[in-house]
Amino acid sequence: MNCGDDIVLGGLHISPDLDTVIYCLAGELDPESGWGLRNESWHALETLRRLGGQSWFALGDRDLGTHLYRTQRLAEGAPLSVVTAELGTRWGAEVRLLPVTDDRLRTRLTIDPPAEGAAGAAETEVSFQEYFVKLRHAVAVRSVRFVGAERARPAPGVLRAVSAAGAVVIAPSNPIVSIGPILAVPEVRRAVTQRREHTVAISPIVAGAALRGPAGRLMAELGHEASVVGVARLYAPVASALVVHSEDAPLAAAVEAEGMRCIVTPAIMHTPDDAAALARATLAAAGLQTPPSQ
Amino acid sequence: MNCGDDIVLGGLHISPDLDTVIYCLAGELDPESGWGLRNESWHALETLRRLGGQSWFALGDRDLGTHLYRTQRLAEGAPLSVVTAELGTRWGAEVRLLPVTDDRLRTRLTIDPPAEGAAGAAETEVSFQEYFVKLRHAVAVRSVRFVGAERARPAPGVLRAVSAAGAVVIAPSNPIVSIGPILAVPEVRRAVTQRREHTVAISPIVAGAALRGPAGRLMAELGHEASVVGVARLYAPVASALVVHSEDAPLAAAVEAEGMRCIVTPAIMHTPDDAAALARATLAAAGLQTPPSQ
Repeated sequence: MNCGDDIVLGGLHISPDLDTVIYCLAGELDPESGWGLRNESWHALETLRRLGGQSWFALGDRDLGTHLYRTQRLAEGAPLSVVTAELGTRWGAEVRLLPVTDDRLRTRLTIDPPAEGAAGAAETEVSFQEYFVKLRHAVAVRSVRFVGAERARPAPGVLRAVSAAGAVVIAPSNPIVSIGPILAVPEVRRAVTQRREHTVAISPIVAGAALRGPAGRLMAELGHEASVVGVARLYAPVASALVVHSEDAPLAAAVEAEGMRCIVTPAIMHTPDDAAALARATLAAAGLQTPPSQ
Repeated sequence: MNCGDDIVLGGLHISPDLDTVIYCLAGELDPESGWGLRNESWHALETLRRLGGQSWFALGDRDLGTHLYRTQRLAEGAPLSVVTAELGTRWGAEVRLLPVTDDRLRTRLTIDPPAEGAAGAAETEVSFQEYFVKLRHAVAVRSVRFVGAERARPAPGVLRAVSAAGAVVIAPSNPIVSIGPILAVPEVRRAVTQRREHTVAISPIVAGAALRGPAGRLMAELGHEASVVGVARLYAPVASALVVHSEDAPLAAAVEAEGMRCIVTPAIMHTPDDAAALARATLAAAGLQTPPSQ
């Protein structure tokens, strides 16, 4: 999993991607927003805002318990992968969650100066959370880099998980800033590439745009085509198949021209049944048998 | 004010003494416990406890807003004195609050190993909060030191506040661990000593014991007499008068033998009127006229 989004805010080590997955798998994710905890209270953040502090990052009261726990354990010397496993277990997420690395890896984006910036202000580099939350990804991105990725070692268990898996699935997440940091760790990219025949990606782009978030805009700004074909170009080195939504059937041949098999299937997940059907289609594309629909 | 109690917990910079005074002067102190905020909620701490984190230090949700603010501002490079002034203003404490220093100063206590420690465990050194909160001051203290005090410079305004004040009042706080860190900063001790004639201390010891907290026990363990006479010996170098409670009238001569004037007056503050009367007696002892009782 991606930990390039991690940020230290007010002294707390926050891992937004890891937390969202933990809360989701534990059944604690807020269904309205898609992040944070359900039934959350906001007393700490309201106080911080009233005091004039930086309150652009939403810190719920119960969520703060997670951040305090992680920060304490990291300060004690526990690696992020160990802390993530502890948090997963204690929140009740019954799946093994592995951050790509225990080393420091940070996604940094060079952006055009915000409109309200001083005239003539130079381009500036920000963290992922500043881009995504503080600036609401309403700025043009010129480049992205993953600081520390070249030297990062895979967290314990990551390489084995990739090599031993029946299939490796690249979720329909942002290829640049969510999957990118994972594949930027050289040994991980190599391990996934070695499993290319059993690696399937699901396109986050449907009919030329991301279903949510800035993936489409970001791909275009960085010189990629914001289409399933652009996605195929990014993933062809590491995955042998791309799952695309039915609407993109006309582009299947162009995807295959990039060197990937193209699986056309309903790929928009409105309901758990949609998600289950997509998972079955994806695993079948990787050559795995799956139990029939319930 | 004392900042030797400060602690970093889960990444957050916490200044318990400063916060208690700010909350008290802002009318926000919890009247039951005497610390923390009134009408506090505890969602973050309950979550941290449930996750198995270190939860011995009580972090209320709104209180976390204060700690997040302080930690953010310190990380931005603001000195503790500036942050304290900001917090005082924003919480509504209408008095100028000055930490003794912006430099790092930490109270450390060498204690006997706790009873549950391994047999033969050596004595151990802990922070003030570990001693006071985690161990509930139920351990024997062998020595106290103020790490960083010798090199600490007074925070901006501290020396001027002492030199310009009509009177310097040493509150009935713990002489060793609450007043001690302040007077351990050499320039501050020198400045108070120069104002000795206008410096008055109020004894925290009444009839041989502290009204609350471990001051009596701590004085005895460190070789001081746990009485107003023991307090007089500690304060005689810096203060010219000691206010003692009526019950200690028989010891007035012994206090004066230590070189301090002894003011005998009701010194237990049950009500705001008690506190006002004590303040008037104290300022009168420093040679200040005060307005008559309302």
